[in-house]
Amino acid sequence: MSALTPATDHLIQCLRILPGVGPKSAQRMALELLEKDPERARALAQSLLTALERVKHCERCQNLSEEPLCAVCQDERRNERVLCVTESPLDVIAIEGAGAFDGQYFVLKGRLSPLDGIGPAEIGLPLLKKRLEESPVEELILATSATAEGEATAEFIAQMIRGKEIRLTRLAQGIPSGGELGSIDRNTLGHAFSGRKVF
Amino acid sequence: MSALTPATDHLIQCLRILPGVGPKSAQRMALELLEKDPERARALAQSLLTALERVKHCERCQNLSEEPLCAVCQDERRNERVLCVTESPLDVIAIEGAGAFDGQYFVLKGRLSPLDGIGPAEIGLPLLKKRLEESPVEELILATSATAEGEATAEFIAQMIRGKEIRLTRLAQGIPSGGELGSIDRNTLGHAFSGRKVF
Repeated sequence: MSALTPATDHLIQCLRILPGVGPKSAQRMALELLEKDPERARALAQSLLTALERVKHCERCQNLSEEPLCAVCQDERRNERVLCVTESPLDVIAIEGAGAFDGQYFVLKGRLSPLDGIGPAEIGLPLLKKRLEESPVEELILATSATAEGEATAEFIAQMIRGKEIRLTRLAQGIPSGGELGSIDRNTLGHAFSGRKVF
Repeated sequence: MSALTPATDHLIQCLRILPGVGPKSAQRMALELLEKDPERARALAQSLLTALERVKHCERCQNLSEEPLCAVCQDERRNERVLCVTESPLDVIAIEGAGAFDGQYFVLKGRLSPLDGIGPAEIGLPLLKKRLEESPVEELILATSATAEGEATAEFIAQMIRGKEIRLTRLAQGIPSGGELGSIDRNTLGHAFSGRKVF
């Protein structure tokens, strides 16, 4: 015997779906859920079922939404002439948190990764193309991440809209706020130098 | 707006019950659950509800069990004269995995921690006392952890059974298997020296 009970073992196995949770953490989590506070554990299970039931994607921008259109797309005060393309709903939260953007979003379902079979259709680029044809977008901010795959995705979108009269921009790369030069990596420093501004 | 959808936000909040999960990981987990594989996410919620429903504690040893008696307590081949006291069902898994013990267990519900209001009754010591009065236990192995609270718990149990004819033992402390002396902490080295054996 090297197991708990059948139901506990099954729970441990199911917990492995969570990102970053290996066999040991799954065991610890299962124990915590069953032993510490059954009421809150039950609330977790119920909230997961409810969210799976209710949460869909916005028909217009692919952000998470419980209605056909998400909160941003419903908000008439947002500037529809500036569209920010992100890789995930979490990026939208981060950008909204910064409070520096009043345009609309298009939320890709991840980024291009041909080796994993994730192509343009998988992340929703056809819907972006349609949006750009139908809406009066003047600037498209490519806010995909500053990784090889994020750059490739931005590059692909740039190719996709070639010939259209849309201003393409990319978020500035450089030293993060509070960053000390000694602890900044080479790539970031390189970008900070090449993108330097008049003081 | 710095939120996803109401159901998603509630899920994120509920995920915080998991040990070691802060606000950022909870966000990532919620997204993963909702976006990546809804079927497996649903299976997780269901398995949690099922486990909460079915998993109880063994009436005899407090280990997790779906029946009145756990698998070890039901197994007549186990030696009931040797009883091993652990702090958690996870410790039982670890010991069973080592395959070095054929006795029975008594699983405390944690360890004594007076400052947190966790006293003898909270971790089930009255049941252990009763067990020792009713069963022919000859050796009690105090396998609580090698921390201050684990030691205090072992000490408390030793006091509790003073006067009884039971051999009390504690797991050996020393260099872990594969351990290199240069990377071993002082306490462990101290125990390894004081517990040294003839070669």
